[in-house]
Amino acid sequence: MRNTTRLNSTLKALLLELLGSRLNFSAAICDRHGQGESHHPIMAPEAVAFVRTTEEVSAIMRLCHEHDCPVVPFGTGTSLEGHVAAIAGGLCIDLSEMAEIIAVNDEDLDCRVQAGVTRKQINQYLRDTGLFFPIDPGADASLGGMAATRASGTNAVRYGTMRDNVLGLTVVMADGEIVHTGGRARKSSAGYDLTRMFVGSEGTLGIITELQLKLYGIPEAISSAVCSFGDLEAAVNSVMLIVQSGIPVARIELLDDVQMDAVNKYSKLNYAVAPTLFFEFHGTEASVKEQAERVGEIVADYGGGDFQWATRQEDRTKLWQARHDAYYAGINLRTDCQGWPTDVCVPVSKLAECILETRRLIDASGLIAPMVGHVGDGNFHVLFIVDPENEEEMDQAAEVNATMVEMAIGFGGTCTGEHGVGLGKKKYLVREHGEGAVALMRTIKTALDPKGLLNPGKVVPEV
Amino acid sequence: MRNTTRLNSTLKALLLELLGSRLNFSAAICDRHGQGESHHPIMAPEAVAFVRTTEEVSAIMRLCHEHDCPVVPFGTGTSLEGHVAAIAGGLCIDLSEMAEIIAVNDEDLDCRVQAGVTRKQINQYLRDTGLFFPIDPGADASLGGMAATRASGTNAVRYGTMRDNVLGLTVVMADGEIVHTGGRARKSSAGYDLTRMFVGSEGTLGIITELQLKLYGIPEAISSAVCSFGDLEAAVNSVMLIVQSGIPVARIELLDDVQMDAVNKYSKLNYAVAPTLFFEFHGTEASVKEQAERVGEIVADYGGGDFQWATRQEDRTKLWQARHDAYYAGINLRTDCQGWPTDVCVPVSKLAECILETRRLIDASGLIAPMVGHVGDGNFHVLFIVDPENEEEMDQAAEVNATMVEMAIGFGGTCTGEHGVGLGKKKYLVREHGEGAVALMRTIKTALDPKGLLNPGKVVPEV
Repeated sequence: MRNTTRLNSTLKALLLELLGSRLNFSAAICDRHGQGESHHPIMAPEAVAFVRTTEEVSAIMRLCHEHDCPVVPFGTGTSLEGHVAAIAGGLCIDLSEMAEIIAVNDEDLDCRVQAGVTRKQINQYLRDTGLFFPIDPGADASLGGMAATRASGTNAVRYGTMRDNVLGLTVVMADGEIVHTGGRARKSSAGYDLTRMFVGSEGTLGIITELQLKLYGIPEAISSAVCSFGDLEAAVNSVMLIVQSGIPVARIELLDDVQMDAVNKYSKLNYAVAPTLFFEFHGTEASVKEQAERVGEIVADYGGGDFQWATRQEDRTKLWQARHDAYYAGINLRTDCQGWPTDVCVPVSKLAECILETRRLIDASGLIAPMVGHVGDGNFHVLFIVDPENEEEMDQAAEVNATMVEMAIGFGGTCTGEHGVGLGKKKYLVREHGEGAVALMRTIKTALDPKGLLNPGKVVPEV
Repeated sequence: MRNTTRLNSTLKALLLELLGSRLNFSAAICDRHGQGESHHPIMAPEAVAFVRTTEEVSAIMRLCHEHDCPVVPFGTGTSLEGHVAAIAGGLCIDLSEMAEIIAVNDEDLDCRVQAGVTRKQINQYLRDTGLFFPIDPGADASLGGMAATRASGTNAVRYGTMRDNVLGLTVVMADGEIVHTGGRARKSSAGYDLTRMFVGSEGTLGIITELQLKLYGIPEAISSAVCSFGDLEAAVNSVMLIVQSGIPVARIELLDDVQMDAVNKYSKLNYAVAPTLFFEFHGTEASVKEQAERVGEIVADYGGGDFQWATRQEDRTKLWQARHDAYYAGINLRTDCQGWPTDVCVPVSKLAECILETRRLIDASGLIAPMVGHVGDGNFHVLFIVDPENEEEMDQAAEVNATMVEMAIGFGGTCTGEHGVGLGKKKYLVREHGEGAVALMRTIKTALDPKGLLNPGKVVPEV
């Protein structure tokens, strides 16, 4: 589908004057920019602008605002809920060439980057400084995109999410105005928290062009361990106790038996095909040892197997690569199929019940759907492996998804812990937050983007 | 000063019908509600409503909205920047009787409270559960008020600020609409971060009536230590290295020599009259020991004296009470005077320079002004001990304050780390955030409170 009515010829000429060959109209490029990594159909923009500076984004927005042209910001295209679909046509602003690391302040543990810098790029750059940026959603996403979707991932149980790790932003507003939020102080009570308003707004309130981020010292000691369980419940219950005990584990990841099977096949490994926890411990030598001992005791109480350890960097990388490849391993389980990833997050006391009931629903449906979870946060994912042409299968997946979301919300949880709303979760927002809160989101959207040009149709459900 | 023109007789009658004797018009009560704990002059509301439920606040707001009557929410009156001054007259809504602890979920480490519950009350209530709420601004403030000013305090270096510890809110909007934000999941990507929008909004966007808060397990081991230094610079530089080393100290507080003298006198103690750091370590027995050793080594490198230890609960309480009494100790340094507390926060690498220059400015002015700091966050406070009748003194304090703020902002810091904007810091917002960001704050304020009834004149500077 391609809507070709919003980027008029006057605007085209003005944008070409501004961007030259960095304004691209090719169908292949446009199509690639109209779909993330998920089941949502391609909705291509009419053109893609490859931008290089905040000022350029501002100039584009000024023109688009004048000509009523919708705009969809784009980082690496790894979004999962249709965030980049150009449902109203218009222009895609690709920020991937805004990849400059502007400053690293090692004394203050912070850095400033352009929005197109990816998480692997910043960590590669930091390698020799003894610092790292912990947020790790799996994909090598852009930091701007990660902020826009309030991403988190495997390290969030210890280091928080993008919400906690963005100190400030540069944002281009709907009319082209450039706004700076936050600062470099670790805390501030100076006015409304504009930074947090943009983090998670999915490009619907403004376009993030620069970020000030927290960094952390690479821990003196890091070790990783894998441990399999007789059943899902035992694995999840042990996590609950670990979290309640306040042990500062850096990562606690659950992979169910279906997912372990997929990972073994895809990454050529031979872990037990059973519910499995992946742990990572950060700290001093002594504290890592103590954390691992305490976790080991809890895990043993729940019948967990012995830890398989990985302490050397390359072993740890291999282990976590397997975890990160879970998505690709999953979609590799069937040919001619697509992944439909979904996630919810619940209070940790409801995690076992929620995961087990979801597993039961999936098995009853006959769908193939591995499960993984950032279980330390109460967050878990289902990856439906579906044939998008098979309507019955797609309906079944939609039904399991809806039931799981309903259950999570009923437990005081959320319809998405880290993937974001995009198009896919819009229909659940009123159920989760109530009419009042959603009306308030709509008020904010209308106040900041009265013409509705910024990533239209995302996040806030229509009245 | 008392503005008596906004609460008209019809509205009075309607409010009396709703609240009966819980609507109070006495001058003494109104005066007490028109001033926090600071140098800002009393600006009394026309009446004070002592509310008990969210629904009651909603009903009041519906009436005030209809009758264009300004409203100032009030917790315990411990605000420091004129937040509760009724500069446009109208009604004060006192939430101190909304003091119910609604639920404690020990499995999920969270609780739900009415906004009038104080931090001491919740911790008293939790005493036997093994849990605690860490945010501790010194004063026994209400949790609603702490959220409204984005409070933090001594524990923030380890546990974060109110921004990080509020999971969700119930808020009454300008027109009386009740909105629920957030939830019980530890993280969510489901829509705009309304919770963070209200945290720090100082009653200008809505009235917080309930909070869902994170709780923490009381650490297995806690110990506190005091250490004095030859000069301020050595004390501050040792803190910088401790923070950069990633040692998870729970509290690092600096008191300068003037403040130590005041504390000794007020709390009948005999610490050295020298720049002094107060530490608190939380963790397992082994990790507390390791943290203390590492900090001890760093401190020794900077010429710090031996640690004086406090491990027993009552000794720790005594030590921290002295720290918490710093404000009262300060204003006790002179008779017939008032405290004018102010705070800024800077990147930690600029802390030594900023504190030393501020000390120099104070000494050059001849003012009496002890300094304390949550230095682990880069946050420090000056308490001007002034005679409010002495214009010259007040001008000198204002000048030092302005210079200190200017310097902090120049270093990438903020005009207030934790006290909030209120009336006192409004004039610095544009300098800190720029015209664009302040205009955006104004847009949000206007969208949510078009009649300008919620705590008018606070936070957002006039055009």
